[in-house]
Amino acid sequence: LTIIAVVATNITDPWNEFVSWTGTLADLNGTGALLGWDRETGMPPRGAQTRARQMGTIAGLHHREMVRPDIDDVLAALGQASLDAEQTRAVAVATRARRRAMRMPESLVRELSEARSRCVTVWLEARPRADYPAFAEALRAVVALKRQEAQAVGDGGEPYDALLEEFEPGLRAKDLEPIFADLRARIAPLVAAAHDVPPAPDLSGRVWPAAAQVALAHDLGALVGFDASGGMIALSAHPFTSSPGFGDVRFSTRVNEADPVGNILAVMHEAGHALYEQGFPERYARGVLLDAPSLGAHESQSRFWENHIGRTAGFWRHIAPLLRAHFPEAMVDLEPQALFQRASSVQPSLIRVDADEVTYNLHIALRFEIELALIRGDLDVDELPTAWDDRMHEMLGVRPPSAADGVMQDIHWAEGLIGYFPTYTIGNLYAAQLAETADATLGGLEAAIEAGRFTEILAFMRDRVHCHGRDRDTPEMMRAATGKDLSADALVGHLSRVVQPPS
Amino acid sequence: LTIIAVVATNITDPWNEFVSWTGTLADLNGTGALLGWDRETGMPPRGAQTRARQMGTIAGLHHREMVRPDIDDVLAALGQASLDAEQTRAVAVATRARRRAMRMPESLVRELSEARSRCVTVWLEARPRADYPAFAEALRAVVALKRQEAQAVGDGGEPYDALLEEFEPGLRAKDLEPIFADLRARIAPLVAAAHDVPPAPDLSGRVWPAAAQVALAHDLGALVGFDASGGMIALSAHPFTSSPGFGDVRFSTRVNEADPVGNILAVMHEAGHALYEQGFPERYARGVLLDAPSLGAHESQSRFWENHIGRTAGFWRHIAPLLRAHFPEAMVDLEPQALFQRASSVQPSLIRVDADEVTYNLHIALRFEIELALIRGDLDVDELPTAWDDRMHEMLGVRPPSAADGVMQDIHWAEGLIGYFPTYTIGNLYAAQLAETADATLGGLEAAIEAGRFTEILAFMRDRVHCHGRDRDTPEMMRAATGKDLSADALVGHLSRVVQPPS
Repeated sequence: LTIIAVVATNITDPWNEFVSWTGTLADLNGTGALLGWDRETGMPPRGAQTRARQMGTIAGLHHREMVRPDIDDVLAALGQASLDAEQTRAVAVATRARRRAMRMPESLVRELSEARSRCVTVWLEARPRADYPAFAEALRAVVALKRQEAQAVGDGGEPYDALLEEFEPGLRAKDLEPIFADLRARIAPLVAAAHDVPPAPDLSGRVWPAAAQVALAHDLGALVGFDASGGMIALSAHPFTSSPGFGDVRFSTRVNEADPVGNILAVMHEAGHALYEQGFPERYARGVLLDAPSLGAHESQSRFWENHIGRTAGFWRHIAPLLRAHFPEAMVDLEPQALFQRASSVQPSLIRVDADEVTYNLHIALRFEIELALIRGDLDVDELPTAWDDRMHEMLGVRPPSAADGVMQDIHWAEGLIGYFPTYTIGNLYAAQLAETADATLGGLEAAIEAGRFTEILAFMRDRVHCHGRDRDTPEMMRAATGKDLSADALVGHLSRVVQPPS
Repeated sequence: LTIIAVVATNITDPWNEFVSWTGTLADLNGTGALLGWDRETGMPPRGAQTRARQMGTIAGLHHREMVRPDIDDVLAALGQASLDAEQTRAVAVATRARRRAMRMPESLVRELSEARSRCVTVWLEARPRADYPAFAEALRAVVALKRQEAQAVGDGGEPYDALLEEFEPGLRAKDLEPIFADLRARIAPLVAAAHDVPPAPDLSGRVWPAAAQVALAHDLGALVGFDASGGMIALSAHPFTSSPGFGDVRFSTRVNEADPVGNILAVMHEAGHALYEQGFPERYARGVLLDAPSLGAHESQSRFWENHIGRTAGFWRHIAPLLRAHFPEAMVDLEPQALFQRASSVQPSLIRVDADEVTYNLHIALRFEIELALIRGDLDVDELPTAWDDRMHEMLGVRPPSAADGVMQDIHWAEGLIGYFPTYTIGNLYAAQLAETADATLGGLEAAIEAGRFTEILAFMRDRVHCHGRDRDTPEMMRAATGKDLSADALVGHLSRVVQPPS
């Protein structure tokens, strides 16, 4: 049986068609975000299986909408239309995403989805046993398919760039390699110098009640400018930020009753992401430009609030009254300086997510070097543990006792996220450049923090970063915001002051 | 420009294609349910506008999927396939829904959506002013379009049946008219007799803290068998139940610190809906049969737990220890009998949602008579207030001081929900029939309640109703469950005992 469908297209208002198309895509993205948010913050355990199918269905409908054949005519008509700068940019961004989606063969999408799902399952099961051979077999399939993806979506040249482009449009491996090399060289002596920093004080025996920590999270959100009428704060196993739609930006945190510092830094980190999204212009609602231009740009905001505000002595002095109000018992005979020291202590360690601000970027440098070699075909999946452990020892002076605390510690590669890790350090680099600029603009950033001038700090970020949404790529936006191209200088300067505070 | 798409269909496994199609529909339904749940229970106010668009987009994609042209071939192939009884039923139910969707012209769908949206807006604005002429103008458009819909989707004959069919498949206006007439005639003397019931005791001065009421809601849920690992309980302005997917059934309640009875009855009502959905067989997950066969069937469950359990003296005696534990101060010198009297007092009143169990069905009879006349063309929208007020006086002896407390009190008609109101009374009728059967089966229902034998009561419902999902239409399921066809007898018998309790 053969069905012949004849569709006559007659596009009278291509911009309207474009807005309708991208609005549907935005609705599907926002809906997917809500399905994910709810899964992490509320969904009952027995709902997991159906939720996974729902998220797959919404992703599939998003892909189907993205590659809708009749959109070719809309984009062609827009090529002839007279558009303003924002419209032109929106069309360019959407066209880029559509081209990428259309270049992915459906068979590859399906095989990747299956291989990732299988690899995550194997990872969950094999990691506790540190069974690298079992993991390697599943990971080999993912890496092979990601290399095929790079081939399919790239424009020739460095295959890694095709993967990086998904997360960090406008940056290339050849831009990142010298920066990571520079970082490695200049952070090494800082790690050595950190041995002189006094150890963080012991908090044992003090209890920081969960309910008070949640109340504090709300107070901190309000302090830095988070608008609760356009968002919410919840608890989840892993803190994250998500926006199901314009006017609705949510973040989560986690609390540990033995230590308040993790919650406070998580709130500052996630509030940084959330403030960014709350600062997008209302005219971008449901549109292509209602987003950050890259993950690195997004991470620049979370790292700015976490590291350049949350890890300063001035911040802990400023919030001391809040801490005493929420934790009247735990704060007895405790100076805010002690909590600051816990927030800023430096100590080489094995696990990225527990790493301090100084050694963190070495964890990323290691992953960047390894995944670049994997995608280039210079390193085999079997060689990963040795490559990992040797680099770890070289950069940080520690050696994982097993693969569980080494090459198997992150879920990212199992999920097919290759080209993603560098965005964490890109965020740190831009955060440091922005902090340098804010310091000059505000007449001393730490003084502004200690005085609680968060409205001014937020206004600075709204003006330089948030108001742009995705109206330009990150390198261009950051050059305008900080006057500089991406480099290690600002971050190394900042980390030097962390290790050897100016007296 | 003309695009010619040639699709060769070659259906090797039509059942698999069918399962994939209906699975996508189920995923979209569940996703829509989550969008709605979140809107009522958590979404920040500024997210409302985008959320409305998202819900429209998901509904539109559901419609697009429902009428997918290639499904004709799948259904045709299934007509030749050898299917078991459940497969055959699933295909029949899906085919019925698809036929209905395909009979709705796209222009009518769009006009109805706009007219409903406009009418709700006008209603919200005009109701406080009791401005019926403003409302009538918007309502006239909705009614005219609903009559067009009845014409489009019906099979000729009584146009109201085409609307009723959406909510109550298998029942016709000609079945309902004699039942409502019978109810009116037999409830009238009960309302008169209710004047002899002693008035409910005064609770003023006692405080029932919100947090304790929420904790009680969870305890009551657990008491009647609600599985928290497959659901959750939240707060919202209007209590409701929703299931975003198999294994995930949620209900909400509301609390008033001056009176605990509303919360307790809301929990019993919504838990009735939720227990029903938690009792659907796991093999129906993501399938066509994972649903109640009608709204009346669903309401039979909520009304059973609310009225036949929650409004009995035995129930209040059974939960007295729970009440004393949660409200140690408010319960001082208060017998559970006093709360039972508040839960079961009878008093004619103007507002349906505040009505007692006895007069409630007269509110529905009034609406059924009016909407039947509207759709038949026997009553004009301009005549509604007079028709309403006269019937109200005739049935309940009260006359609305203004349209705000009369014909404008409900949102349903503005939302285009015509043919929906009767399902409330159908639920009450079936609930009473089920309670009669349970009474005989369990050797006295109220004794079982007072003894806390909720596991047995739930097992009775699981067996007679829940386990069926949507594997047959409601009249057939209820005939098998209760041995009787739908009639006023059981409900009138129950209401007689409410008004004149057996001594």
